[in-house]
Amino acid sequence: MAKNKDNYYVKLANRIYDLDQKALDATGSSLGRVFSGEREKNIKDIVLNITADKQSYTFRAELAAIANMIRTIPEKKTKSALLREYNDILMDIKKKGSGFNSVEIINEQVAGLNATNFSSGKRSKDDHLIICISRSHSSAGSDIGFALADNLKINFYDTDVLKNVMTRMNQEKDLEWLEEKDAVFLRHADRVRKSKSGHLREFSRFHGLPSADAEFFNISKFLCEIAHTEDFVVVGRCADAILANNHIPHVSIYITAPADIRARHLMQTEQISSFRKAMKIIAKTDAKHEAYYHRYTGRIWGYAGNYDLCLNSSSYGIEESVEVIKRIIKDPQD
Amino acid sequence: MAKNKDNYYVKLANRIYDLDQKALDATGSSLGRVFSGEREKNIKDIVLNITADKQSYTFRAELAAIANMIRTIPEKKTKSALLREYNDILMDIKKKGSGFNSVEIINEQVAGLNATNFSSGKRSKDDHLIICISRSHSSAGSDIGFALADNLKINFYDTDVLKNVMTRMNQEKDLEWLEEKDAVFLRHADRVRKSKSGHLREFSRFHGLPSADAEFFNISKFLCEIAHTEDFVVVGRCADAILANNHIPHVSIYITAPADIRARHLMQTEQISSFRKAMKIIAKTDAKHEAYYHRYTGRIWGYAGNYDLCLNSSSYGIEESVEVIKRIIKDPQD
Repeated sequence: MAKNKDNYYVKLANRIYDLDQKALDATGSSLGRVFSGEREKNIKDIVLNITADKQSYTFRAELAAIANMIRTIPEKKTKSALLREYNDILMDIKKKGSGFNSVEIINEQVAGLNATNFSSGKRSKDDHLIICISRSHSSAGSDIGFALADNLKINFYDTDVLKNVMTRMNQEKDLEWLEEKDAVFLRHADRVRKSKSGHLREFSRFHGLPSADAEFFNISKFLCEIAHTEDFVVVGRCADAILANNHIPHVSIYITAPADIRARHLMQTEQISSFRKAMKIIAKTDAKHEAYYHRYTGRIWGYAGNYDLCLNSSSYGIEESVEVIKRIIKDPQD
Repeated sequence: MAKNKDNYYVKLANRIYDLDQKALDATGSSLGRVFSGEREKNIKDIVLNITADKQSYTFRAELAAIANMIRTIPEKKTKSALLREYNDILMDIKKKGSGFNSVEIINEQVAGLNATNFSSGKRSKDDHLIICISRSHSSAGSDIGFALADNLKINFYDTDVLKNVMTRMNQEKDLEWLEEKDAVFLRHADRVRKSKSGHLREFSRFHGLPSADAEFFNISKFLCEIAHTEDFVVVGRCADAILANNHIPHVSIYITAPADIRARHLMQTEQISSFRKAMKIIAKTDAKHEAYYHRYTGRIWGYAGNYDLCLNSSSYGIEESVEVIKRIIKDPQD
């Protein structure tokens, strides 16, 4: 370390040590100061922490403790003067790119496709707003999706709507659009086998693909097409993975609630009288979703790290879930 | 069903059937209409769906398909006229409390404590803003919490800050505040046993509690106290469960990212050269967090249904995570 850089850190350490004393003086806190003991030793430790190669949470915690103490100062003028000094110190630590050694976690590939990441600045004004909702069984995720589309006045697609569209499009015609990039899906899909006769019949019909896969690819093709022409909410069908795989920006939201609350919800919607039975149905349906998602994406369904956001519908309810999603998707610049 | 109520539904069914035809006429869609086949049979089916006791996703999907078709009408006047008619129909279905049979998922107890549920209307202006962040290892959740507190100019507490505070408070003194309501925690905590001599020594020191539990209860007491006097961000320490247990409104956010991205992040922050080693550390640390959380709360750590919200830090990055949380906690009425 160069000599003047060294001096810089010693100066910074002294400012931190002094700020701690000033905060103590102004609060008269019975807790005592954060940096107790001999000045020289503390300065040395602070310099070591600022210049450390590894993350120094302890040091950051010490600074936070000083700031917390400052915020309890009753006298406003002293309080704001010390908070200003604290912010200056924080800025200086950040500017030098040293200090807490906080390292960005962002993944450019993932973030580049996140339609609600407004600071990534990669979204074009031509991009359509696409909201993908995955949901656990009986979490009212589908109701939230429908209410959201209705509120935003944009199109709504779920399994039933898509099946409706597919039937009307007479999906048996063509699968020629099946391209190289879709091969990744096939790796996860090649374990499905039908009965021999059914398999043979469907072989010619779907160019060798089982019908479930044909449906998946048709829906995939349809979603990618409409993504270029309209805003929409889509519930289920691995839409998040389909769009990511095709480099189409969107926001992926997983909606769930504690299993017991979902079971009670299911008892109401499906008129089931036994709580145990409702719990069983939920576990079984979730497992089916999980298998479907894993088969076509190779990813773990319901794992928070796979989505941009997760929402607890029992904590927001249908109406406020719509509102919180609207707050999230709104570009603060608009 | 009363006769005039019956008439009402037949009329509604006819309006829906006609809207479908009008949409088809205006788009000239090659897909054909949603309700194909004989009019009488369709009307009967629609009435059955509207008046069904169970959730009728299929019917809702049919309506959505009509709306999607209407939104593609190029001629603006026809389009808005038909969308108005669609909205009127939707309103009529909702007003009668029939139709899709969408049932609220909200849990009053959970929602009543959610500080970002602005429609529950239960928050008092005196409530302080408390943001609880749980995070998987190396998801930068702690960095996000620190940056958020800094941005909002409110206090920040994480394990290190709290330990600092506890040390200064000389926590050995009193545990008399331990009340009945905390007993629920004890049920999950009674399996921890220390070495015989250590156990005996700590028995008298912490009124029979192992030191880890004493620390937990002290932190719990501290958090509940400051919750009445200040706004803050707290990272870890089961703060969400502690506050919920004490009926203190807050928002609980779980921050995570895919394991491989977290491993690469850890390699940078901790200067680890082996990806495999980083993955191992992450799995091990997550398991430790999971055990701690389960021991004191009986709940599953990292399960999205246990938090109000989850955030994928690799999709937002530190700075935009702060921004998205700020968008969520902002009362739209303010």
